[in-house]
Amino acid sequence: MKLLEDRILEDGVIINNDILKVDSFLNHQIDVSLTRALAKEIAAEFPTAKKVLTIETSGIPLAFAVAEELGNVPLVFAKKSKSATVGNDVYTATVKSFTRNINSQITVRDRYLKRGDKVLIVDDFLAEGNASFGLYDLCKQADATVLGVAVAVEKGFQGGRKRLEELGLRVYSGANVKAFVDNKPVF
Amino acid sequence: MKLLEDRILEDGVIINNDILKVDSFLNHQIDVSLTRALAKEIAAEFPTAKKVLTIETSGIPLAFAVAEELGNVPLVFAKKSKSATVGNDVYTATVKSFTRNINSQITVRDRYLKRGDKVLIVDDFLAEGNASFGLYDLCKQADATVLGVAVAVEKGFQGGRKRLEELGLRVYSGANVKAFVDNKPVF
Repeated sequence: MKLLEDRILEDGVIINNDILKVDSFLNHQIDVSLTRALAKEIAAEFPTAKKVLTIETSGIPLAFAVAEELGNVPLVFAKKSKSATVGNDVYTATVKSFTRNINSQITVRDRYLKRGDKVLIVDDFLAEGNASFGLYDLCKQADATVLGVAVAVEKGFQGGRKRLEELGLRVYSGANVKAFVDNKPVF
Repeated sequence: MKLLEDRILEDGVIINNDILKVDSFLNHQIDVSLTRALAKEIAAEFPTAKKVLTIETSGIPLAFAVAEELGNVPLVFAKKSKSATVGNDVYTATVKSFTRNINSQITVRDRYLKRGDKVLIVDDFLAEGNASFGLYDLCKQADATVLGVAVAVEKGFQGGRKRLEELGLRVYSGANVKAFVDNKPVF
Protein backbone atom coordinates (compact mmCIF):
# COMPACT_ATOMS: atom_id res chain seq x y z
CA MET A 1 0.00 0.00 0.00
CA LYS A 2 1.67 3.16 -1.21
CA LEU A 3 0.32 5.24 1.69
CA LEU A 4 2.08 2.97 4.18
CA GLU A 5 5.30 2.70 2.17
CA ASP A 6 5.48 6.48 1.92
CA ARG A 7 4.95 6.81 5.65
CA ILE A 8 7.67 4.29 6.41
CA LEU A 9 10.07 6.21 4.16
CA GLU A 10 9.13 9.47 5.88
CA ASP A 11 8.93 8.45 9.53
CA GLY A 12 10.45 4.98 9.91
CA VAL A 13 13.80 4.79 11.70
CA ILE A 14 16.23 1.99 10.93
CA ILE A 15 17.88 0.97 14.18
CA ASN A 16 20.12 -1.72 12.72
CA ASN A 17 19.93 -4.26 9.89
CA ASP A 18 17.08 -6.08 11.62
CA ILE A 19 14.97 -3.46 13.37
CA LEU A 20 12.73 -0.83 11.77
CA LYS A 21 11.19 1.53 14.31
CA VAL A 22 7.75 2.84 13.39
CA ASP A 23 6.53 3.92 16.79
CA SER A 24 5.40 7.36 15.59
CA PHE A 25 2.48 5.89 13.61
CA LEU A 26 2.13 2.14 14.10
CA ASN A 27 2.98 0.79 17.52
CA HIS A 28 3.25 3.45 20.22
CA GLN A 29 1.53 6.46 18.72
CA ILE A 30 -1.10 5.21 16.26
CA ASP A 31 -2.20 7.01 13.11
CA VAL A 32 -5.83 5.90 13.12
CA SER A 33 -6.59 7.05 9.54
CA LEU A 34 -3.69 5.06 8.15
CA THR A 35 -4.75 2.06 10.24
CA ARG A 36 -8.29 2.30 8.89
CA ALA A 37 -7.09 2.53 5.27
CA LEU A 38 -4.94 -0.55 5.77
CA ALA A 39 -7.80 -2.42 7.46
CA LYS A 40 -10.03 -1.80 4.42
CA GLU A 41 -7.41 -3.35 2.14
CA ILE A 42 -6.98 -6.35 4.41
CA ALA A 43 -10.71 -6.99 4.71
CA ALA A 44 -11.02 -6.86 0.91
CA GLU A 45 -8.28 -9.50 0.64
CA PHE A 46 -9.90 -11.88 3.13
CA PRO A 47 -13.64 -11.18 2.78
CA THR A 48 -14.77 -14.56 4.13
CA ALA A 49 -13.01 -14.31 7.50
CA LYS A 50 -15.42 -14.54 10.44
CA LYS A 51 -13.02 -13.95 13.33
CA VAL A 52 -9.86 -11.89 13.76
CA LEU A 53 -7.06 -13.18 15.99
CA THR A 54 -4.08 -11.11 17.11
CA ILE A 55 -1.60 -11.06 19.96
CA GLU A 56 -1.18 -8.33 22.51
CA THR A 57 -0.20 -5.52 22.11
CA SER A 58 0.79 -3.69 18.96
CA GLY A 59 -1.45 -5.54 16.53
CA ILE A 60 -4.65 -4.70 18.38
CA PRO A 61 -5.56 -1.37 16.71
CA LEU A 62 -5.25 -2.81 13.20
CA ALA A 63 -6.98 -6.03 14.21
CA PHE A 64 -9.88 -4.07 15.69
CA ALA A 65 -10.32 -2.06 12.49
CA VAL A 66 -10.15 -5.20 10.34
CA ALA A 67 -12.83 -6.88 12.49
CA GLU A 68 -15.10 -3.90 11.88
CA GLU A 69 -14.41 -3.88 8.14
CA LEU A 70 -15.28 -7.59 7.97
CA GLY A 71 -18.76 -6.77 9.29
CA ASN A 72 -18.21 -6.57 13.03
CA VAL A 73 -16.84 -10.05 13.47
CA PRO A 74 -15.34 -10.94 16.88
CA LEU A 75 -11.81 -9.86 17.67
CA VAL A 76 -9.76 -12.09 19.97
CA PHE A 77 -6.34 -11.22 21.25
CA ALA A 78 -4.00 -13.86 22.63
CA LYS A 79 -2.41 -12.97 25.95
CA LYS A 80 1.28 -13.15 26.67
CA SER A 81 2.56 -14.57 29.90
CA LYS A 82 6.02 -15.40 31.12
CA SER A 83 4.59 -17.92 33.50
CA ALA A 84 3.90 -21.46 32.42
CA THR A 85 1.12 -21.70 34.99
CA VAL A 86 -2.02 -21.03 33.04
CA GLY A 87 -5.54 -22.29 33.57
CA ASN A 88 -6.79 -25.53 32.11
CA ASP A 89 -9.40 -23.84 29.93
CA VAL A 90 -6.88 -22.27 27.56
CA TYR A 91 -4.91 -23.14 24.44
CA THR A 92 -1.21 -22.37 24.86
CA ALA A 93 1.75 -21.95 22.53
CA THR A 94 5.31 -20.70 22.90
CA VAL A 95 6.48 -17.70 20.88
CA LYS A 96 9.98 -16.31 20.55
CA SER A 97 10.03 -12.54 20.31
CA PHE A 98 12.22 -11.51 17.39
CA THR A 99 13.10 -8.07 18.71
CA ARG A 100 13.62 -9.04 22.35
CA ASN A 101 14.93 -12.58 22.01
CA ILE A 102 12.79 -13.99 24.82
CA ASN A 103 10.18 -16.72 24.85
CA SER A 104 6.60 -15.99 25.85
CA GLN A 105 3.70 -18.26 26.49
CA ILE A 106 0.64 -17.11 24.57
CA THR A 107 -2.83 -18.20 25.52
CA VAL A 108 -6.43 -17.97 24.33
CA ARG A 109 -9.36 -19.21 26.38
CA ASP A 110 -10.75 -22.26 24.63
CA ARG A 111 -14.24 -20.85 24.37
CA TYR A 112 -13.01 -18.05 22.07
CA LEU A 113 -11.54 -20.32 19.39
CA LYS A 114 -13.80 -23.01 18.06
CA ARG A 115 -13.88 -25.79 15.54
CA GLY A 116 -15.13 -24.32 12.25
CA ASP A 117 -14.08 -20.73 13.00
CA LYS A 118 -12.73 -19.01 9.89
CA VAL A 119 -9.87 -17.05 11.37
CA LEU A 120 -7.74 -14.26 9.95
CA ILE A 121 -4.51 -13.64 11.89
CA VAL A 122 -3.55 -9.94 12.05
CA ASP A 123 -0.39 -8.34 13.44
CA ASP A 124 1.70 -5.21 13.06
CA PHE A 125 4.92 -6.91 11.90
CA LEU A 126 5.96 -10.08 10.14
CA ALA A 127 9.62 -10.94 10.62
CA GLU A 128 10.49 -14.63 11.14
CA GLY A 129 6.80 -15.42 11.58
CA ASN A 130 7.08 -16.61 15.17
CA ALA A 131 4.02 -14.76 16.48
CA SER A 132 1.85 -15.79 13.53
CA PHE A 133 3.06 -19.37 13.84
CA GLY A 134 2.09 -19.38 17.52
CA LEU A 135 -1.37 -18.02 16.72
CA TYR A 136 -1.74 -20.64 13.96
CA ASP A 137 -0.77 -23.30 16.50
CA LEU A 138 -3.56 -22.11 18.86
CA CYS A 139 -6.07 -22.30 15.99
CA LYS A 140 -4.99 -25.82 15.09
CA GLN A 141 -5.46 -26.91 18.70
CA ALA A 142 -9.01 -25.56 18.46
CA ASP A 143 -9.55 -27.19 15.04
CA ALA A 144 -10.30 -23.73 13.65
CA THR A 145 -9.51 -22.86 10.02
CA VAL A 146 -6.89 -20.17 9.39
CA LEU A 147 -7.56 -18.28 6.16
CA GLY A 148 -4.34 -16.31 6.21
CA VAL A 149 -2.08 -13.82 7.88
CA ALA A 150 -2.30 -10.05 7.35
CA VAL A 151 0.29 -7.63 8.69
CA ALA A 152 1.07 -3.97 8.32
CA VAL A 153 4.82 -4.31 7.74
CA GLU A 154 6.67 -7.37 6.49
CA LYS A 155 10.43 -7.63 6.65
CA GLY A 156 10.70 -9.80 3.58
CA PHE A 157 14.30 -10.77 4.20
CA GLN A 158 13.56 -12.58 7.45
CA GLY A 159 11.75 -15.62 6.13
CA GLY A 160 8.35 -15.34 7.81
CA ARG A 161 6.30 -15.42 4.62
CA LYS A 162 7.93 -18.59 3.31
CA ARG A 163 7.41 -20.35 6.60
CA LEU A 164 3.70 -19.42 6.70
CA GLU A 165 3.07 -20.19 3.04
CA GLU A 166 4.51 -23.65 3.60
CA LEU A 167 1.66 -24.16 6.06
CA GLY A 168 -0.76 -23.32 3.24
CA LEU A 169 -1.49 -19.83 4.55
CA ARG A 170 -2.02 -16.81 2.36
CA VAL A 171 0.06 -13.83 3.50
CA TYR A 172 -0.77 -10.15 2.95
CA SER A 173 1.43 -7.24 3.99
CA GLY A 174 0.70 -3.54 3.58
CA ALA A 175 4.39 -2.89 2.97
CA ASN A 176 7.07 -5.49 2.28
CA VAL A 177 10.52 -4.24 3.18
CA LYS A 178 12.81 -6.35 0.99
CA ALA A 179 16.07 -4.87 2.27
CA PHE A 180 17.66 -1.89 3.94
CA VAL A 181 19.99 -0.12 1.49
CA ASP A 182 22.01 2.94 2.50
CA ASN A 183 19.91 3.11 5.67
CA LYS A 184 16.66 3.28 3.68
CA PRO A 185 14.00 0.60 3.34
CA VAL A 186 13.55 -0.79 -0.17
CA PHE A 187 10.14 -2.25 -1.03
CA MET B 1 -25.16 3.08 28.65
CA LYS B 2 -27.93 0.56 28.76
CA LEU B 3 -26.43 -1.61 26.00
CA LEU B 4 -23.31 -2.13 28.10
CA GLU B 5 -25.18 -2.64 31.39
CA ASP B 6 -27.36 -5.28 29.75
CA ARG B 7 -24.32 -7.04 28.37
CA ILE B 8 -22.63 -7.07 31.75
CA LEU B 9 -25.76 -8.57 33.31
CA GLU B 10 -25.90 -11.20 30.58
CA ASP B 11 -22.24 -12.16 30.18
CA GLY B 12 -20.25 -10.71 33.08
CA VAL B 13 -18.95 -13.16 35.65
CA ILE B 14 -18.36 -12.09 39.25
CA ILE B 15 -15.22 -13.82 40.47
CA ASN B 16 -15.30 -12.37 43.96
CA ASN B 17 -16.37 -9.12 45.61
CA ASP B 18 -13.68 -7.20 43.73
CA ILE B 19 -13.36 -8.80 40.32
CA LEU B 20 -15.87 -8.70 37.46
CA LYS B 21 -14.79 -10.79 34.49
CA VAL B 22 -15.94 -9.48 31.11
CA ASP B 23 -13.51 -11.26 28.85
CA SER B 24 -16.20 -12.52 26.48
CA PHE B 25 -16.85 -9.02 25.09
CA LEU B 26 -14.44 -6.44 26.53
CA ASN B 27 -10.92 -7.60 27.21
CA HIS B 28 -10.04 -10.91 25.58
CA GLN B 29 -12.71 -11.42 22.97
CA ILE B 30 -13.90 -7.97 21.86
CA ASP B 31 -17.42 -7.12 20.68
CA VAL B 32 -16.49 -4.47 18.15
CA SER B 33 -20.05 -3.14 17.66
CA LEU B 34 -20.47 -2.56 21.37
CA THR B 35 -17.04 -0.93 21.52
CA ARG B 36 -17.97 1.40 18.66
CA ALA B 37 -21.28 2.39 20.30
CA LEU B 38 -19.46 3.19 23.53
CA ALA B 39 -16.80 5.17 21.66
CA LYS B 40 -19.49 7.37 20.08
CA GLU B 41 -20.86 8.20 23.52
CA ILE B 42 -17.42 8.99 24.90
CA ALA B 43 -16.48 11.22 21.97
CA ALA B 44 -19.73 13.15 22.42
CA GLU B 45 -18.85 13.71 26.10
CA PHE B 46 -15.35 15.02 25.36
CA PRO B 47 -15.65 16.64 21.92
CA THR B 48 -12.65 18.94 22.33
CA ALA B 49 -10.09 16.22 23.01
CA LYS B 50 -7.24 16.18 20.49
CA LYS B 51 -5.32 13.12 21.66
CA VAL B 52 -6.31 9.81 23.25
CA LEU B 53 -4.02 8.18 25.79
CA THR B 54 -4.43 4.64 27.09
CA ILE B 55 -2.25 1.93 28.60
CA GLU B 56 -1.56 -1.47 27.11
CA THR B 57 -3.45 -3.76 26.65
CA SER B 58 -7.15 -3.99 27.27
CA GLY B 59 -8.04 -0.34 26.74
CA ILE B 60 -6.63 -0.20 23.23
CA PRO B 61 -9.69 -1.26 21.18
CA LEU B 62 -11.94 1.31 22.86
CA ALA B 63 -9.26 3.99 22.74
CA PHE B 64 -8.74 3.38 19.02
CA ALA B 65 -12.47 3.75 18.32
CA VAL B 66 -12.67 6.93 20.43
CA ALA B 67 -9.72 8.44 18.55
CA GLU B 68 -11.56 7.83 15.28
CA GLU B 69 -14.83 9.28 16.62
CA LEU B 70 -12.96 12.41 17.71
CA GLY B 71 -11.94 13.02 14.10
CA ASN B 72 -8.91 10.75 13.70
CA VAL B 73 -6.86 12.29 16.48
CA PRO B 74 -3.64 10.47 17.49
CA LEU B 75 -3.86 7.49 19.81
CA VAL B 76 -0.95 6.89 22.17
CA PHE B 77 -0.63 3.86 24.40
CA ALA B 78 1.69 3.85 27.38
CA LYS B 79 3.89 0.78 27.62
CA LYS B 80 4.25 -1.35 30.71
CA SER B 81 7.60 -2.61 31.83
CA LYS B 82 8.74 -4.43 34.92
CA SER B 83 12.23 -3.09 34.45
CA ALA B 84 13.22 0.28 35.82
CA THR B 85 15.79 0.67 33.06
CA VAL B 86 14.07 2.78 30.46
CA GLY B 87 15.51 5.24 27.98
CA ASN B 88 16.07 8.89 28.78
CA ASP B 89 13.58 10.10 26.18
CA VAL B 90 10.52 8.83 28.04
CA TYR B 91 8.16 9.94 30.76
CA THR B 92 7.75 7.30 33.44
CA ALA B 93 5.27 6.59 36.23
CA THR B 94 4.60 3.68 38.56
CA VAL B 95 1.21 1.96 38.53
CA LYS B 96 -0.11 -0.66 40.89
CA SER B 97 -2.27 -3.23 39.14
CA PHE B 98 -5.49 -3.67 41.09
CA THR B 99 -6.24 -7.19 39.89
CA ARG B 100 -2.72 -8.56 40.07
CA ASN B 101 -1.27 -6.59 42.98
CA ILE B 102 2.04 -5.84 41.27
CA ASN B 103 3.72 -2.58 40.38
CA SER B 104 4.53 -1.72 36.78
CA GLN B 105 6.54 1.08 35.28
CA ILE B 106 4.58 2.77 32.52
CA THR B 107 6.29 4.89 29.91
CA VAL B 108 5.50 7.16 26.98
CA ARG B 109 8.16 8.55 24.67
CA ASP B 110 8.38 12.26 25.32
CA ARG B 111 7.76 13.22 21.72
CA TYR B 112 4.24 11.73 21.87
CA LEU B 113 3.00 13.86 24.79
CA LYS B 114 3.48 17.58 24.42
CA ARG B 115 2.79 20.80 26.23
CA GLY B 116 -0.63 22.02 25.12
CA ASP B 117 -1.97 18.60 24.12
CA LYS B 118 -5.65 18.19 25.06
CA VAL B 119 -5.68 14.61 26.24
CA LEU B 120 -8.53 12.23 26.98
CA ILE B 121 -7.52 9.19 29.03
CA VAL B 122 -9.38 6.00 28.02
CA ASP B 123 -9.32 2.58 29.63
CA ASP B 124 -11.46 -0.52 29.96
CA PHE B 125 -11.87 -0.45 33.76
CA LEU B 126 -11.82 2.11 36.56
CA ALA B 127 -11.33 0.58 40.00
CA GLU B 128 -9.04 2.47 42.40
CA GLY B 129 -7.91 4.73 39.58
CA ASN B 130 -4.27 3.67 39.65
CA ALA B 131 -3.82 3.32 35.90
CA SER B 132 -5.58 6.61 35.16
CA PHE B 133 -3.58 8.34 37.85
CA GLY B 134 -0.36 7.06 36.29
CA LEU B 135 -1.42 8.28 32.85
CA TYR B 136 -2.37 11.65 34.36
CA ASP B 137 1.08 11.80 35.95
CA LEU B 138 2.74 11.26 32.54
CA CYS B 139 0.62 14.09 31.07
CA LYS B 140 1.59 16.44 33.90
CA GLN B 141 5.26 15.69 33.30
CA ALA B 142 4.71 16.71 29.67
CA ASP B 143 2.70 19.78 30.69
CA ALA B 144 -0.21 18.42 28.66
CA THR B 145 -3.83 19.16 29.64
CA VAL B 146 -6.01 16.23 30.69
CA LEU B 147 -9.68 16.81 29.85
CA GLY B 148 -10.96 13.75 31.62
CA VAL B 149 -11.05 10.00 31.99
CA ALA B 150 -13.44 7.74 30.09
CA VAL B 151 -13.79 4.04 30.83
CA ALA B 152 -16.08 1.24 29.79
CA VAL B 153 -16.75 -0.18 33.26
CA GLU B 154 -16.40 1.62 36.58
CA LYS B 155 -16.48 -0.23 39.87
CA GLY B 156 -17.98 2.66 41.77
CA PHE B 157 -17.29 1.16 45.18
CA GLN B 158 -13.52 1.23 44.78
CA GLY B 159 -12.89 4.94 44.98
CA GLY B 160 -11.28 5.71 41.63
CA ARG B 161 -13.77 8.39 40.57
CA LYS B 162 -13.39 10.41 43.76
CA ARG B 163 -9.63 10.32 43.50
CA LEU B 164 -9.68 11.52 39.87
CA GLU B 165 -12.33 14.17 40.46
CA GLU B 166 -10.18 15.59 43.24
CA LEU B 167 -7.57 16.24 40.56
CA GLY B 168 -10.17 18.26 38.67
CA LEU B 169 -10.81 15.54 36.08
CA ARG B 170 -14.20 14.77 34.62
CA VAL B 171 -14.97 11.04 34.71
CA TYR B 172 -17.27 9.15 32.33
CA SER B 173 -18.10 5.47 32.56
CA GLY B 174 -20.29 3.43 30.22
CA ALA B 175 -21.49 1.36 33.18
CA ASN B 176 -21.00 2.12 36.85
CA VAL B 177 -21.19 -0.99 39.00
CA LYS B 178 -22.18 0.36 42.40
CA ALA B 179 -22.16 -2.99 44.18
CA PHE B 180 -22.45 -6.71 43.76
CA VAL B 181 -25.66 -7.96 45.37
CA ASP B 182 -26.55 -11.65 45.38
CA ASN B 183 -23.76 -12.24 42.89
CA LYS B 184 -25.25 -9.70 40.45
CA PRO B 185 -23.89 -6.26 39.56
CA VAL B 186 -26.10 -3.34 40.56
CA PHE B 187 -25.78 -0.13 38.55
